[in-house]
Amino acid sequence: MRVDGRDNLELRPIKVTRNYIKHAEGSVLVEFGDTKVICTASIDDKVPQFLKGTGQGWITCEYGMLPRSTVERKPREAAKGKIDGRTAEIQRLIGRALRSVVDLTKIGERTIWIDCDVIQADGGTRTASITGAFIALVDAINKLDEVEKLAVYPIRNYVAAVSVGIFDGEVLLDLCYEEDSKAKVDMNVVMTDKGDFVEIQGTGEESPFNRKELNMMLEAAEIGIEKLIEIQKRELGSAANRIGEEISVEVSEDNTSQQ
Amino acid sequence: MRVDGRDNLELRPIKVTRNYIKHAEGSVLVEFGDTKVICTASIDDKVPQFLKGTGQGWITCEYGMLPRSTVERKPREAAKGKIDGRTAEIQRLIGRALRSVVDLTKIGERTIWIDCDVIQADGGTRTASITGAFIALVDAINKLDEVEKLAVYPIRNYVAAVSVGIFDGEVLLDLCYEEDSKAKVDMNVVMTDKGDFVEIQGTGEESPFNRKELNMMLEAAEIGIEKLIEIQKRELGSAANRIGEEISVEVSEDNTSQQ
Amino acid sequence: MRVDGRDNLELRPIKVTRNYIKHAEGSVLVEFGDTKVICTASIDDKVPQFLKGTGQGWITCEYGMLPRSTVERKPREAAKGKIDGRTAEIQRLIGRALRSVVDLTKIGERTIWIDCDVIQADGGTRTASITGAFIALVDAINKLDEVEKLAVYPIRNYVAAVSVGIFDGEVLLDLCYEEDSKAKVDMNVVMTDKGDFVEIQGTGEESPFNRKELNMMLEAAEIGIEKLIEIQKRELGSAANRIGEEISVEVSEDNTSQQ
Amino acid sequence: MRVDGRDNLELRPIKVTRNYIKHAEGSVLVEFGDTKVICTASIDDKVPQFLKGTGQGWITCEYGMLPRSTVERKPREAAKGKIDGRTAEIQRLIGRALRSVVDLTKIGERTIWIDCDVIQADGGTRTASITGAFIALVDAINKLDEVEKLAVYPIRNYVAAVSVGIFDGEVLLDLCYEEDSKAKVDMNVVMTDKGDFVEIQGTGEESPFNRKELNMMLEAAEIGIEKLIEIQKRELGSAANRIGEEISVEVSEDNTSQQ
Amino acid sequence: MRVDGRDNLELRPIKVTRNYIKHAEGSVLVEFGDTKVICTASIDDKVPQFLKGTGQGWITCEYGMLPRSTVERKPREAAKGKIDGRTAEIQRLIGRALRSVVDLTKIGERTIWIDCDVIQADGGTRTASITGAFIALVDAINKLDEVEKLAVYPIRNYVAAVSVGIFDGEVLLDLCYEEDSKAKVDMNVVMTDKGDFVEIQGTGEESPFNRKELNMMLEAAEIGIEKLIEIQKRELGSAANRIGEEISVEVSEDNTSQQ
Amino acid sequence: MRVDGRDNLELRPIKVTRNYIKHAEGSVLVEFGDTKVICTASIDDKVPQFLKGTGQGWITCEYGMLPRSTVERKPREAAKGKIDGRTAEIQRLIGRALRSVVDLTKIGERTIWIDCDVIQADGGTRTASITGAFIALVDAINKLDEVEKLAVYPIRNYVAAVSVGIFDGEVLLDLCYEEDSKAKVDMNVVMTDKGDFVEIQGTGEESPFNRKELNMMLEAAEIGIEKLIEIQKRELGSAANRIGEEISVEVSEDNTSQQ
Repeated sequence: MRVDGRDNLELRPIKVTRNYIKHAEGSVLVEFGDTKVICTASIDDKVPQFLKGTGQGWITCEYGMLPRSTVERKPREAAKGKIDGRTAEIQRLIGRALRSVVDLTKIGERTIWIDCDVIQADGGTRTASITGAFIALVDAINKLDEVEKLAVYPIRNYVAAVSVGIFDGEVLLDLCYEEDSKAKVDMNVVMTDKGDFVEIQGTGEESPFNRKELNMMLEAAEIGIEKLIEIQKRELGSAANRIGEEISVEVSEDNTSQQ
Repeated sequence: MRVDGRDNLELRPIKVTRNYIKHAEGSVLVEFGDTKVICTASIDDKVPQFLKGTGQGWITCEYGMLPRSTVERKPREAAKGKIDGRTAEIQRLIGRALRSVVDLTKIGERTIWIDCDVIQADGGTRTASITGAFIALVDAINKLDEVEKLAVYPIRNYVAAVSVGIFDGEVLLDLCYEEDSKAKVDMNVVMTDKGDFVEIQGTGEESPFNRKELNMMLEAAEIGIEKLIEIQKRELGSAANRIGEEISVEVSEDNTSQQ
Repeated sequence: MRVDGRDNLELRPIKVTRNYIKHAEGSVLVEFGDTKVICTASIDDKVPQFLKGTGQGWITCEYGMLPRSTVERKPREAAKGKIDGRTAEIQRLIGRALRSVVDLTKIGERTIWIDCDVIQADGGTRTASITGAFIALVDAINKLDEVEKLAVYPIRNYVAAVSVGIFDGEVLLDLCYEEDSKAKVDMNVVMTDKGDFVEIQGTGEESPFNRKELNMMLEAAEIGIEKLIEIQKRELGSAANRIGEEISVEVSEDNTSQQ
Repeated sequence: MRVDGRDNLELRPIKVTRNYIKHAEGSVLVEFGDTKVICTASIDDKVPQFLKGTGQGWITCEYGMLPRSTVERKPREAAKGKIDGRTAEIQRLIGRALRSVVDLTKIGERTIWIDCDVIQADGGTRTASITGAFIALVDAINKLDEVEKLAVYPIRNYVAAVSVGIFDGEVLLDLCYEEDSKAKVDMNVVMTDKGDFVEIQGTGEESPFNRKELNMMLEAAEIGIEKLIEIQKRELGSAANRIGEEISVEVSEDNTSQQ
Repeated sequence: MRVDGRDNLELRPIKVTRNYIKHAEGSVLVEFGDTKVICTASIDDKVPQFLKGTGQGWITCEYGMLPRSTVERKPREAAKGKIDGRTAEIQRLIGRALRSVVDLTKIGERTIWIDCDVIQADGGTRTASITGAFIALVDAINKLDEVEKLAVYPIRNYVAAVSVGIFDGEVLLDLCYEEDSKAKVDMNVVMTDKGDFVEIQGTGEESPFNRKELNMMLEAAEIGIEKLIEIQKRELGSAANRIGEEISVEVSEDNTSQQ
Repeated sequence: MRVDGRDNLELRPIKVTRNYIKHAEGSVLVEFGDTKVICTASIDDKVPQFLKGTGQGWITCEYGMLPRSTVERKPREAAKGKIDGRTAEIQRLIGRALRSVVDLTKIGERTIWIDCDVIQADGGTRTASITGAFIALVDAINKLDEVEKLAVYPIRNYVAAVSVGIFDGEVLLDLCYEEDSKAKVDMNVVMTDKGDFVEIQGTGEESPFNRKELNMMLEAAEIGIEKLIEIQKRELGSAANRIGEEISVEVSEDNTSQQ
């Protein structure tokens, strides 16, 4: 039995509070058990230098932890004057994950800033961030759509993320901090609602893992992500109506042309 | 009538959620209307260089705003690599306010870190921070007391803060952002439960103010702070039992000796 | 009797040397006793981003201390790579004080940089800075006026600042460092020649203060500032001829229209 | 056919120059085709704060690119005053990879600094770095062994890394820059000589990938890493004699005890 | 006899490898004995602010050392977040030396970035950098010439540099690290092929030197630089054909007009 | 005739105000014409890491310019968060110059911090700094001597510095800013009272210079420095009594032993 009584392939209680911050175009408080992250999506009418004049937009992410989100107080990065390597690694991961399901050529020359701020940490902050930030992103793009009447809806797929690990020879889903710090392997998996991988990051620093273990972890991750995307669908409700619209059209056109 | 329908000397709805962050020795989510701040108090067994070997402790504060706590997204200080002047000013104010009611020689060579992180801003973030952080501080010191059995209880007084301003010739209490940005004078007042001032910061950048206006603002502030301290008392309940204990003793001793 | 033999409500010897630095549009060496600050005002034909295209100007201040202006050598902020919180707090205060007496819409899209550099510190560096920088500002604006023939003179009032404090139950004016470090309350007051407050910053970190003490301190400050503004007038002489011109006109117009 | 004429599962010409830098305890110039990286291993008799007094050592990595290692000159991180996110991500990956094959409790309280500096970049700089740095690490640990006569040899396994990707429906091994920038999936795989995974990082930012594609990529990676480890063995020769010594002993002991 | 068996006025073995980095417009690996520096010249179509609109170009240099180029590992400047004073001093010297022989008005509004990265250090890294970077600069300007067909060739002279010092009463040429750290005087001399000085930097921190010693050092430097420029000529071959072309023309025109 | 009417080999009016800053162990306001620099010497009972336990002391220098010391306002280095290359170069030069005349083994494990802050700049700030800082250094060491009764007086020689340059074919001494910016060669020379060179830095960025020009410049520098040292002697008076004491003794001992 796991430290918190869960089954090996059971997620922690997942809670999503939409529109958590009134100023943001999209905002979510996402909770994976005791891990709590505020995710906001903000629309900015500028793009980075490398996209100016291309007509294409960008999605970028910044991640932070409140100093006392952790068991020991973590010195504030603003006070130290620089972000640490872990932060850089995580915010790059979240950015890639969200960009992978959006057609950036359809949002105009805009940047959507995703901010994921951990207010309480108990393992899996990056996977909770991706899962919650996706919902904030949908809300922000819908707000953009209301104003701009986007011809083509830019979000092609749902995307969510979960951690898996191997501890005491067992594959565990959605590790809490205590499990994470003891696991011999730690893997973060990002997948779409089509069951495709967007990102796989597996680390066997403590002890390498073999192909069979990898496959078992991937299967556990699939189970978790399927449930997380169900939750995203339930929370978004009709706000998700146009997700994948573009792809469906393409597919049916393909079918037609094949006849 | 004010933008949100309040009377001139009426506080916004004040909400305090104690023990908001599970890891911290003390933690509070404090809400002054739409202004929401997470305040934590963390105990660290080190002191700054200038106190080493003195037997005395220290209380210091760091303040931050989530990037999208504001109407426009505010660039992250950790990403810019430095905190701005406003942040420096505010965190110094909060630190001074809390130190003023604590006998630092009674907490041992320890630093209590106060972190005030604004998750949603609508004016008065520094006054909400002081008011909420005081509660987190009491909880942290009580936790220290449980373990260390402090001979003398170090907290001498309650402390709370509120903003006042002059708008259209009227004195307003607890300004929301819209009022704050239009007010001709903006004043932050920090007071104890004894009715003494800990800090007064009044700024007439838009238009200087005279002694009569100052007095009206101070009276408004007194009304507000009295109510805020009532709320602190209600929220803390028996956790506040030892506040001022030292002073009462001193006073009764004084009385005795005077007889 | 005070450490330097002054009466409680007596300023230290005040000395102003105009045109101290030959390159600057305005420059002053101001001395409050042993506190010596070089204040310069520099005119720059750019404005910060938020004012571009508004036709309005800006006044901003930077403050510094030479490393050995203090009793113990203070590490150089340029070497540490960042300014500390105290510096940020002070330079924001000076900037607000000076902006409060200038109609920024009348100086064109320009920034006036105020630099206050303490070459010797003995308490009251921020109040000496404000008092001296005002003179440098007038000289710089007059130089601008010579070239640009400003239709409306932008300076509406004199502004000066002084510190007051309570020590051993007595209210003291213009504290030197030794007094400042022992005072139970420390207050900086910025006022105009009309007797209005521009800024009040009172701190009772060591011990809170009551309304009566506040009033006594404000009265002391008024006495000091009146004298400082007399000195400003004497030093500026005819250079101050147009100060308040705009307001006088407005007032007389008001009178006319009221008839 | 690939841009450089290779077969899909063919590595670029791999070249290893041991003892490339005379001052370092271990140093290698490693070339994967036109990608050239100088890897050094330096032994330092200090450990990070969190290891002091534990008797355990540490391996950490810093990664950099010469400004003109890339097609366009990349601004120097030392001049910008901070390392970028990609650098942070890569140096953390290299550090984890090398630590995974070393028993840190056997090197004493020492830090081995791995520096990987790219002097010419053509894709795969992180995989070349890991593969080359491993050799530098062995040489450094052997030098330590000569002096300290380590009772237990700390290196348990070989470790090497390679990139794989999917381009035009084909799985390609060891992508050069041109292939890398066009590939729909990009994966970096770190493995030991036992065929176990140390790290898998697969990114389908451009287009998600399915399980079948994942498996094909992993198989390609295995082929590549097997060859890279052969090259490491050939280059190290007798310098590798003690690698895995500890494990072999453990295994035979296990066998014995099972009898 | 010197530590490496050389005569007092003998250079170390000098080796130049042109086109060392494939991406750069000009690149050289230069070796002065065990000192090895990669020098690249990169052409950028922007100029610093102060040159915009002048039609003139700029040459600037950045210098760095790989962490383990030195006997003890030198902490990475990118990790420390700033370059140290020695680096600043050296890169300014190299920039001045190269600009002195180029007519910047003839390269258009372009910046040529010179990067000198020391991969192994054994004394004389700045003089090796200047000597090697000159060759990279010629190659880069020739590449520019091919494309732009420069009307006037901008390089007027060869430039090279060498160190000299006094050790045990003897003048030594081209000091290696061991000699450099023991020398009582250390001087770096930069000269052109016309025998003129571009820069002289002599430091007698350990012990001042007199005019006679100065003259002996300058004569030694002349001998060394003459040989270094011979090497530059040999390595550049026909690539150097247009160097000094402008000056020769001017001279002959002068001659003509004088007739 | 020169822009300010001086003869070619004439210094600007030199003014030295000793004990300019009351807190510092040594302090001087030095003026070379319109160039004004505050030099302080501060004694600190710590040494840099590399000297701990050696019994030897250190002298280090920091240099700064007030923002409006220059014709155009120069952005404050503390605000930019880093010192620029020119500052680094100058402060290293000043440090080396002063260390060259002090026996660091005789001051104990102490650091003497030299701060040179330019309050008005008109060319030659580094040479004025060296010349003035020497006097501050003598005063600080004398204060140390009073307290510690140094067995051996650590200052061996006077040291001063001056700039020379070539303009319109003439050698000029002690260039003001206007001359400096037009000169074809600019050289800074640091010498002792024995006529020995401590540092020579000559830069012919605009146009290289030959041996004859070098010699003419050195002779001009000698004339200037001789006068500057006369001024140092006059200003120091009896405070300089022990300078060179150690050397005189050594010399007479030498004489004795040679007999």
